[in-house]
Amino acid sequence: MGTVAIVGVGLIGGSVGLCLRARGLASRVIGVGRDRAKLDLAVHLGAIDEGRSHAGSAAAEADVVVVCTPVSRIASDCRELALSAGDRVLITDVGSTKAAIVEDVGRDPRAARVFCGAHPIAGSEKQGVGAARADLFEGRTCVVTPSDVTPADRLDRARGFWSGVGCRVEVMSPEEHDRALALTSHLPHVVASAVAGAVGPDLGHLAAGSFRDVTRVASADADLWAAIFLANRGPVLDALCLFRDRLDTFQGLLQAGNAPGLAQWWNEAKASREASSPEAPAIAEPPASRGPR
Amino acid sequence: MGTVAIVGVGLIGGSVGLCLRARGLASRVIGVGRDRAKLDLAVHLGAIDEGRSHAGSAAAEADVVVVCTPVSRIASDCRELALSAGDRVLITDVGSTKAAIVEDVGRDPRAARVFCGAHPIAGSEKQGVGAARADLFEGRTCVVTPSDVTPADRLDRARGFWSGVGCRVEVMSPEEHDRALALTSHLPHVVASAVAGAVGPDLGHLAAGSFRDVTRVASADADLWAAIFLANRGPVLDALCLFRDRLDTFQGLLQAGNAPGLAQWWNEAKASREASSPEAPAIAEPPASRGPR
Repeated sequence: MGTVAIVGVGLIGGSVGLCLRARGLASRVIGVGRDRAKLDLAVHLGAIDEGRSHAGSAAAEADVVVVCTPVSRIASDCRELALSAGDRVLITDVGSTKAAIVEDVGRDPRAARVFCGAHPIAGSEKQGVGAARADLFEGRTCVVTPSDVTPADRLDRARGFWSGVGCRVEVMSPEEHDRALALTSHLPHVVASAVAGAVGPDLGHLAAGSFRDVTRVASADADLWAAIFLANRGPVLDALCLFRDRLDTFQGLLQAGNAPGLAQWWNEAKASREASSPEAPAIAEPPASRGPR
Repeated sequence: MGTVAIVGVGLIGGSVGLCLRARGLASRVIGVGRDRAKLDLAVHLGAIDEGRSHAGSAAAEADVVVVCTPVSRIASDCRELALSAGDRVLITDVGSTKAAIVEDVGRDPRAARVFCGAHPIAGSEKQGVGAARADLFEGRTCVVTPSDVTPADRLDRARGFWSGVGCRVEVMSPEEHDRALALTSHLPHVVASAVAGAVGPDLGHLAAGSFRDVTRVASADADLWAAIFLANRGPVLDALCLFRDRLDTFQGLLQAGNAPGLAQWWNEAKASREASSPEAPAIAEPPASRGPR
């Protein structure tokens, strides 16, 4: 892959670096960030070969640039990086929402021709390069989201890059991605925080394992998640509607004292859960010829 | 503790038995159940000394009877067991709801005089004695819920029993318990299943870690949970109201595009979650002199 620049060396960027270096996939990994101490830590942990504060100089030398900054900054970072990068560069990202980013990058034709968005579905409620792991992406899905103008070779290279770090790659449109992730990631986050907020801080000694599991992701960073919800507002509101429908059904059954109905409601969810568990059979990767849409 | 009879030798009953035997707390542990193969497995795993299908004969020999049957059957099992048991017996239970059980047992004055309800807040989405663990109760809270007619010595013995298997005991009224657990356990279960049901079975390959954590308890048994929700209907509906208020606030902030408001909403939940995490300082046990209420 030649030289890879990672812009934003936190949990995700750091894990990309650790993996690239552990697998010997890149000749050099340059980390870009504003905080010198964090870059030094990333070098110390083996996530990057060197750290720089100037993104443009790193982009100029890079064959691949991976943008791992917060969702609200990714598109402007991509456009800026494209100004300094060579014509052969691939710029990809790790943003948890895709339609707004892909659309925004698309406003700059030069950036749009070198960019192919991606979302490796892996992470943790923890933050920072200290929590990074070389195997974070192993076996996880990475959704790659080309736009109408993404060149086929950039799509192929983005697929290769994310496969290289261990992901099972799936190609989807940015909008399809956002609708799916609103359900499988954003909704669980909203609900986790709403449960924690409803229970309040005073009942901790009576918290069952269910409370701890359901609310674990409520420990994630507030600004990061506010930005994700706003970047995916429509699909998140739609997901909330579906969720409220399920809740309304439950409430009606409970008020009616309908035991078989409650058990059936529960079993429908259980079937969904089991189909979505990590033990579920993997779904085959779409054929490589599918191309951008 | 002398002879302990465990009625219903599944995950919870089996864990009580394993712990009693590992700690040498009982001279004999008799398991009661209808399924001979399950009792034999419980003997094989070391959870009980012997298995019986006849509850009355076990109760007649027992100093302590622990009723670990489903919530919908606990009260009638307690009343029936009290008919066969000696005057010195303590009958306690492990039901996840308490007011309905305590009230129902209280309809039989003989049963009420030997009964002290309890809820060890420990468990798993797994079922059966095969998932039992000797350390399941270690450091977990057990709420002991005397009624107005529970004799002080039965309360003391119930406290001693649950402390003996490793719990931090807290005495509460059955109604207080049910209101608290509606929030810290029943609400998380409803919400977990509503998320799994809303997402459906087709998006498993796009399920993030948040989905898996939030929906883990949706794998629990349907009939068991239908019975718990029905036994605690009022407090569960109240908990749903509090939860819906939090969700409404989120939805309003998202529709308004209010980033600082969303971040503040999130941080309130995060603070609650962190106060309720297992790392939070333990709350002191109420004084032993508090007595039944």
